[in-house]
Amino acid sequence: METKGTLLSYRPDIRVVDATIRDGGLVNDFRFTDEFVKKLYETNIKAGVDYMEFGYKASKEIFDTNEFGIWKFCDEEDIRRIVGDNDTDMKIAVMADVGRTDYKKDIIDRADSVIDLIRIATYINTIPAAIEMAEYCHEKGYETTINIMAVSNDNDADIDEALELICQSNVDGVYIVDSYGAIYPEQMRKLSEKYCRFAEKAGKFVGIHAHNNQQLAFANTIEALRMGVSYLDVTVNGMGRGAGNCSSELLLGFLKNPKFSVIPLLDFLEKYMLPLKEQGVTWGYDIPYLLTGQLNQHPRTAIEAIKQKRTDYKKFYVDLYDYK
Amino acid sequence: METKGTLLSYRPDIRVVDATIRDGGLVNDFRFTDEFVKKLYETNIKAGVDYMEFGYKASKEIFDTNEFGIWKFCDEEDIRRIVGDNDTDMKIAVMADVGRTDYKKDIIDRADSVIDLIRIATYINTIPAAIEMAEYCHEKGYETTINIMAVSNDNDADIDEALELICQSNVDGVYIVDSYGAIYPEQMRKLSEKYCRFAEKAGKFVGIHAHNNQQLAFANTIEALRMGVSYLDVTVNGMGRGAGNCSSELLLGFLKNPKFSVIPLLDFLEKYMLPLKEQGVTWGYDIPYLLTGQLNQHPRTAIEAIKQKRTDYKKFYVDLYDYK
Repeated sequence: METKGTLLSYRPDIRVVDATIRDGGLVNDFRFTDEFVKKLYETNIKAGVDYMEFGYKASKEIFDTNEFGIWKFCDEEDIRRIVGDNDTDMKIAVMADVGRTDYKKDIIDRADSVIDLIRIATYINTIPAAIEMAEYCHEKGYETTINIMAVSNDNDADIDEALELICQSNVDGVYIVDSYGAIYPEQMRKLSEKYCRFAEKAGKFVGIHAHNNQQLAFANTIEALRMGVSYLDVTVNGMGRGAGNCSSELLLGFLKNPKFSVIPLLDFLEKYMLPLKEQGVTWGYDIPYLLTGQLNQHPRTAIEAIKQKRTDYKKFYVDLYDYK
Repeated sequence: METKGTLLSYRPDIRVVDATIRDGGLVNDFRFTDEFVKKLYETNIKAGVDYMEFGYKASKEIFDTNEFGIWKFCDEEDIRRIVGDNDTDMKIAVMADVGRTDYKKDIIDRADSVIDLIRIATYINTIPAAIEMAEYCHEKGYETTINIMAVSNDNDADIDEALELICQSNVDGVYIVDSYGAIYPEQMRKLSEKYCRFAEKAGKFVGIHAHNNQQLAFANTIEALRMGVSYLDVTVNGMGRGAGNCSSELLLGFLKNPKFSVIPLLDFLEKYMLPLKEQGVTWGYDIPYLLTGQLNQHPRTAIEAIKQKRTDYKKFYVDLYDYK
């Protein structure tokens, strides 16, 4: 398989996407203080991050605004309270779930919005709906990606067909999403090669969003990068659902483009992430997450086990077989 | 680069080496209860582990026996108290450091010992001394390996020369040791390919001992495995110096040989590792370890920072530049 770049050079096509508020929001129901979000915004700018994802554009018909913090909905005025007109080099992203977004109501013209990129999250069976949403957002003037979740559960022929469809659309990029943290580097290289093969022909880019159930999020991210993947999702200290994500501090210390720096993050880690952990917000590698990852299952059972402080790992594991 | 095996098949040459007491002993000064060691021994047997390393054969002239638990010295009678005559399929290993072992006094004939494998730990500048020790142990009837530590700091020509010398000796295997947790999978594959190239010609095997500073211990282990490396070091829950090692539960859940099972480990994790952590024994990924790994430095400064509960990560990082 052909690779791109070396360990000493850097690829100008690389974009680092910080998803701390969005994926981390799944841990604390999107209840971040404005100060936290503002400091993260400033930190990301200093660290050379290319995109910061503020949360979801979730439907207020489907979700109760009293049950979640504001970043589940990402109202324009909430983002602007943090970023003003975002007169910086860093772009603003939000995520929109297929079937859970009132996109025709909630996604306004880009000319009137501070948002640059809308990432559409879908499972493989709703690709046509995802494309419809992407086309709508594209029409409104946004950059768009389609993020195919839980790809470790899909078969090759279906992935090929999905990529074929996506590459005929106006979407700008397509993401490999290892929702279950089940993919090994060897598989990630093959998937990356496949996604890049489809995307390059169509003039699109490929991104990666990894989970850390098997402590492979960083490894899978840099192996995907070698194969040509260029949009790289990170979260500070790996904050994200379950075992969390590829840590910003791992990736930004690895990348060779001098614009990236790990130093601003170190201050943020001390002053904002440690207090969050001390408050009892919990994420990161733990045995139940490892086990759902190994079995290529959704982490929901592991999340529940951790919430209940279960440590009967053997029973938990044996029970998992019933979910296959 | 040529690879060995696939994700579905298994390689009969694979040997899993549990180094929990030895590398984990660096965290608690080798003060494990007999019950802990005995249960780990039984767990490893059930899990299909091939070798269990009990600790170091350290010189009692150099080290004070009052300052360390018994597994720093691994007296024959201490091992036998746990394993009897070890009438099992699992073999017993110990580590012997070049320059810190009275090997002519403390290493007896294998016929009189329950130990099977002696692993000789060396830096690249003491390879001749390591070979002398290995030859001595070989004469006494033991299996032997030479483990070249901190190889991320060595240059290619020196590694070639070291491998050349080792391959002319009677040693059975040679280990890649990423002491600093600084090596990326791409580099690990190249190193593995090199080690295997030398070793195969000489009829020897190659092992890997990885550290988790950059959350790459498991990834590097399975990538080395793909390239032909066959002796794979693990520790339960990754217990080991600093950021720790490749976790047994990650690797044993990954390997495809039906003799390996993660289930016995799950009980041990609950009943023995959780209490150890609750007692305040500390290891595993943390920001200071990540930073020494990124900078390819010995973790001693990070270990000290963690001991002092320092969280001024930025100052810590900037200071590290003085150690280069």
